[in-house]
Amino acid sequence: MENKITTLFKIKYPIIQGGMVWCSGWRLVSAVSNAGGLGLLGAGSMYPDVLREHIQKTKQSTDKPFGVNVPLLYPDIDELMKIIVDENVKIVFTSAGNPKTWTKFLHDKNITVAHVISSSKFAKKCEDAGVDAVVAEGFEAGGHNGREETTTLALIPQVRRATSLPLIAAGGIATGNAMLAAITLGADGVQIGTRFALSAESSASEEFKKICCTLNEGDTMLCLKKISPTRMIKNNFYNRIEEAEARGANADELKEILGRARSKKGIFEGDMDEGELEIGQIASLVKEIIPVNKIINEIVSEFNETANNISAIRL
Amino acid sequence: MENKITTLFKIKYPIIQGGMVWCSGWRLVSAVSNAGGLGLLGAGSMYPDVLREHIQKTKQSTDKPFGVNVPLLYPDIDELMKIIVDENVKIVFTSAGNPKTWTKFLHDKNITVAHVISSSKFAKKCEDAGVDAVVAEGFEAGGHNGREETTTLALIPQVRRATSLPLIAAGGIATGNAMLAAITLGADGVQIGTRFALSAESSASEEFKKICCTLNEGDTMLCLKKISPTRMIKNNFYNRIEEAEARGANADELKEILGRARSKKGIFEGDMDEGELEIGQIASLVKEIIPVNKIINEIVSEFNETANNISAIRL
Repeated sequence: MENKITTLFKIKYPIIQGGMVWCSGWRLVSAVSNAGGLGLLGAGSMYPDVLREHIQKTKQSTDKPFGVNVPLLYPDIDELMKIIVDENVKIVFTSAGNPKTWTKFLHDKNITVAHVISSSKFAKKCEDAGVDAVVAEGFEAGGHNGREETTTLALIPQVRRATSLPLIAAGGIATGNAMLAAITLGADGVQIGTRFALSAESSASEEFKKICCTLNEGDTMLCLKKISPTRMIKNNFYNRIEEAEARGANADELKEILGRARSKKGIFEGDMDEGELEIGQIASLVKEIIPVNKIINEIVSEFNETANNISAIRL
Repeated sequence: MENKITTLFKIKYPIIQGGMVWCSGWRLVSAVSNAGGLGLLGAGSMYPDVLREHIQKTKQSTDKPFGVNVPLLYPDIDELMKIIVDENVKIVFTSAGNPKTWTKFLHDKNITVAHVISSSKFAKKCEDAGVDAVVAEGFEAGGHNGREETTTLALIPQVRRATSLPLIAAGGIATGNAMLAAITLGADGVQIGTRFALSAESSASEEFKKICCTLNEGDTMLCLKKISPTRMIKNNFYNRIEEAEARGANADELKEILGRARSKKGIFEGDMDEGELEIGQIASLVKEIIPVNKIINEIVSEFNETANNISAIRL
């Protein structure tokens, strides 16, 4: 398969690995890129020096394209961007901010830019900002999430109508069938988070990966809507948030309960009770932790097998 | 196309029209059945005598199969079921209740039974109850909705794994592409609500249909979670609910704000400020009110065209 996404990023499969906090270090990124996808370092959970180290280690581990995901609200963003340029990174995915702010700077350094959005209104803003591709992410995605609560199934066709930019679907995609469904809806490729967060090469703690493999439907929930909507597992910490929200707690009180470094405590350090356990709805479909190349092989075979079956179906 | 769903209901296309309150009278139902889908009367908004009249008028308007959707929490349910049997209705879709309660009764009268669910846990319960098909409905659907908030994209593959029963996907499906995506995910057919609620033959008020054609992404929201999660348009009434929920109002207070007959006031009587305007997320994709046969033709051509395109794609 060759299309807008494989051509833009010079990759074999239009499969992007979401750059997730506490999961997406050099091991995951190089494994995905070596298997024919596009690995993205998750700069959101890295101090600048840590990011530099991970970029260098990724370059030592793969000669394939890879990128960095940068949440634009990152406090030391200037330093981060400087490192990205210094280290000759060629692909940046930006999220959580205005695509206008950094796209020109990055383009001037010959860096390809994709931006993550949750509505087609922002697809137009991405066009105006000159980004090279958009990631449209639905309500079912883990972690930070759009306020519109539009699901991937509803979002992709609308972003497709709004823009001709290369379109990457995200949220709820963990299998070859879901990837084919996304392409059917008009996407050119997919960004997969949860499934790779739960791979052998993910830097998430074993405790986190293990608990994710036991989830049922309904075991994650979008909460913290008065601060920034976030999907997480319903654990003790979530229950406290949920109780506070039900009685009408305001943003300040919620911030106090949230405190600092909760996602690190949960995902990276393995505190399953008091950590913020960000993961997507589709985690309940994942039942074992396997290496990235096996995940990608499974996705590719399922995609092709289902495409074969579909090719015989007409109404 | 012949499959489990077309065979079970003896219809041409595996397209079910959701039995929606205030939208699904005999005009809509007979139009859908005449066009090769399966029309369902929405008994949830009909007094028993009204249902009887609509069944009789449907029978006069089509010789094709049609059915009735019955919310099992309906207060006069015994009377409703008696009318369904008296009038020789052959297909019943049940929702909002335990599938065990009525399935045997209906089967004894030779009636085919489908049940609406929002999680794969309930798929097993449907199997145990002996229902003939399940409708798995995701978070993006309009009106009353599951507590798990699982989206259609995440739900369908999990229900598919949980049961071999004929599977109808619902929530966020308004186009041939989305129908093909649902089949890709493992569904045998689709239930379409919003698109048919916004057809020429729908009994919803012109005011309601018109406002739905102006919606953008994020203009519907799931609320009333302390009573029964319901997706509706953000209008004045919604704003009052939202304000009350944000300050922690309990179920009793919400019920008082809700009052009675709000969905009738909005959808049927056309009060766009104070009515409860139930509609799915995918309404923002619908921009004009057209007749049912044109809708079904569009869905079928798009499905076939995209299936043609997909049939050439392999990873």
